[in-house]
Amino acid sequence: DAGSVRLRVFLFVWAMVAACFAANDPRPIVGPGASKDDVLNSYGWPTGQSQLGNREILNYPQGTVTLIDGKVEKVSFNMNMKWPPPRPRPGTAPVATGLSRIEITSFVNPKWIPQLADASEVARGIKRKEGVVYSCLVPNRKGLDKALEAGMKEVAVFLSASETHNKKNVNKTVAETLTAFEEVIGPANAAGVRVRAYVWTVYCCPYEGSVDPTKVVALVDELRRRGVYQISLGDTIGVATPLQVKSVLEEVFAVAPIEEIAVHFHDTRGTALANVLVAVGMGVMTVDSAVGGLGGCPYAPGASGNLATEDVVYMLHGMGIATGIDLDALVACSSKLAAVVGHEMPSKYTKAALGARAKAGSRS
Amino acid sequence: DAGSVRLRVFLFVWAMVAACFAANDPRPIVGPGASKDDVLNSYGWPTGQSQLGNREILNYPQGTVTLIDGKVEKVSFNMNMKWPPPRPRPGTAPVATGLSRIEITSFVNPKWIPQLADASEVARGIKRKEGVVYSCLVPNRKGLDKALEAGMKEVAVFLSASETHNKKNVNKTVAETLTAFEEVIGPANAAGVRVRAYVWTVYCCPYEGSVDPTKVVALVDELRRRGVYQISLGDTIGVATPLQVKSVLEEVFAVAPIEEIAVHFHDTRGTALANVLVAVGMGVMTVDSAVGGLGGCPYAPGASGNLATEDVVYMLHGMGIATGIDLDALVACSSKLAAVVGHEMPSKYTKAALGARAKAGSRS
Repeated sequence: DAGSVRLRVFLFVWAMVAACFAANDPRPIVGPGASKDDVLNSYGWPTGQSQLGNREILNYPQGTVTLIDGKVEKVSFNMNMKWPPPRPRPGTAPVATGLSRIEITSFVNPKWIPQLADASEVARGIKRKEGVVYSCLVPNRKGLDKALEAGMKEVAVFLSASETHNKKNVNKTVAETLTAFEEVIGPANAAGVRVRAYVWTVYCCPYEGSVDPTKVVALVDELRRRGVYQISLGDTIGVATPLQVKSVLEEVFAVAPIEEIAVHFHDTRGTALANVLVAVGMGVMTVDSAVGGLGGCPYAPGASGNLATEDVVYMLHGMGIATGIDLDALVACSSKLAAVVGHEMPSKYTKAALGARAKAGSRS
Repeated sequence: DAGSVRLRVFLFVWAMVAACFAANDPRPIVGPGASKDDVLNSYGWPTGQSQLGNREILNYPQGTVTLIDGKVEKVSFNMNMKWPPPRPRPGTAPVATGLSRIEITSFVNPKWIPQLADASEVARGIKRKEGVVYSCLVPNRKGLDKALEAGMKEVAVFLSASETHNKKNVNKTVAETLTAFEEVIGPANAAGVRVRAYVWTVYCCPYEGSVDPTKVVALVDELRRRGVYQISLGDTIGVATPLQVKSVLEEVFAVAPIEEIAVHFHDTRGTALANVLVAVGMGVMTVDSAVGGLGGCPYAPGASGNLATEDVVYMLHGMGIATGIDLDALVACSSKLAAVVGHEMPSKYTKAALGARAKAGSRS
């Protein structure tokens, strides 16, 4: 169903806009000594390498979270951490650790999504930063070939945990989709290109309702065996609540190491950040989000956009969890994107930060 | 400083609007068998008595949360609960438990806030529902007298944990404010009227920065001794993050029983619901919020409004925690309020619910 795919992938238009924007910004976006938010307490922010772009992937490897005894598991809902958290020491701040990952476009058939016809151009045009991994979606071998030609070093495949959603999305059964991945994953890995996988409708399908977590677990198991290095579990319609997240992750962790699992929440009903808190508390080190909260789903009227990277970073930094991200730089990017897309960013943190600046400006 | 008070209490205009609106709605707002959200799983919602109005106070007493072994402490970040949660049985659903509490107005000097000059009129005009407790803010004895004359059975006093914020707000030191409470708390209790207290700037002061939790603890201790029955800890400028909430609550619980503590988060930086999750996980049974997320602070440019009641209820119900609230009725109230105030409600859940309805409508 071409129409379905067209709409589903629509949000990646914004990914391109964002990625181009970030890449073409001539100002340095990496710098030590990020300024402190004037309404926050005296803690200030951990400084480090910025990650700008649309689909942000925050990465908290062991080295970054040694703030709390070297184990990310300590950042848990058992709340072994104390507040105030240990102040990140400049010497150990994750400056230029090269952990940034940005999803920039999607190599889909331009007949389906004319807006993404320039995927190759975007992938080639972006000024790459040392240490940043750029990724893109590829639906099939043809997409992979284009991605490889454009020099991509990471690609992502996608499928749904629910049959109906998958059928409407890619016109294949889940089993057929997995089989079709063979023409992508093997060749990609052979070319030295990592493959990530998105599992959509993990918590609920808009057509089928509840999704049995055993389906998700089976898919995670299957995808790992087929050679993807990380699997992002998506709450596609944004309905998940904290205990559900906990339950699904517990089952998934029985078949996959935590570091191979990422979480991807949409903030449709406002629960995304609470869900991230649960996932990070359980040890998940990779969180998908989007600068400013750009995106959303044209299929779901009234749906709010993606979880804003700024809001995730604000919460985690406030908990003493380093992300290597410069929050001020993120707000700067977000506010510029607002001008590009012609509307305010959904990110609450960015609204607050820009408001505080406006107030400070009106005082002087 | 009259100007400060005027602005601070400005948001209670909306409280009146909301309360009047809810009260004047001729349709029954309490009903069994709330319809299921068509994008959620087959669990559906606990049904029960609606709480409509602006400043919602969700209450989870022991009886309501016996879903999980009769102890609210079990609903914790240790995650002893399993998902899916036990389905609330109709027989034990908290229908008409009379736990609803609504803050309807503020009896402040009408010279300061002309918009609240009709506080008495509002308090007298509202059609009271059996079992619902209506409350109001009173800054001093004169306010209390007016509240008593209007038949209020509960009032609330307020002060800040930080000296500067308190001084700017009520033109008194914190110690002077506590002394001034004597003319309110004693007479109120003598008249059989319960007194609640708000402590503002618990986590951070916009003027002083970090607030020492020992100040908060001392205030809680002092307020309890002076006769308030419950203390709401307010993140006035919306900066708190989960570990900070945990840390402050742990210290407060050393001097006050959990059931006497409520939490009040503003969603200025998007962290409010994650903070509620922490507080509820620690056993807090009373959460302040506002229908639709109405409100906000004219003092803080860019600040988002109060935490939307719908979003809190959605998360808690999704976790199997009963609130006695009919989410559909809440959305109906919220969408009507949007017409009254002339803008969309900030609540993400309400946006999603109205979007889903619009989509369903366009299908038929």
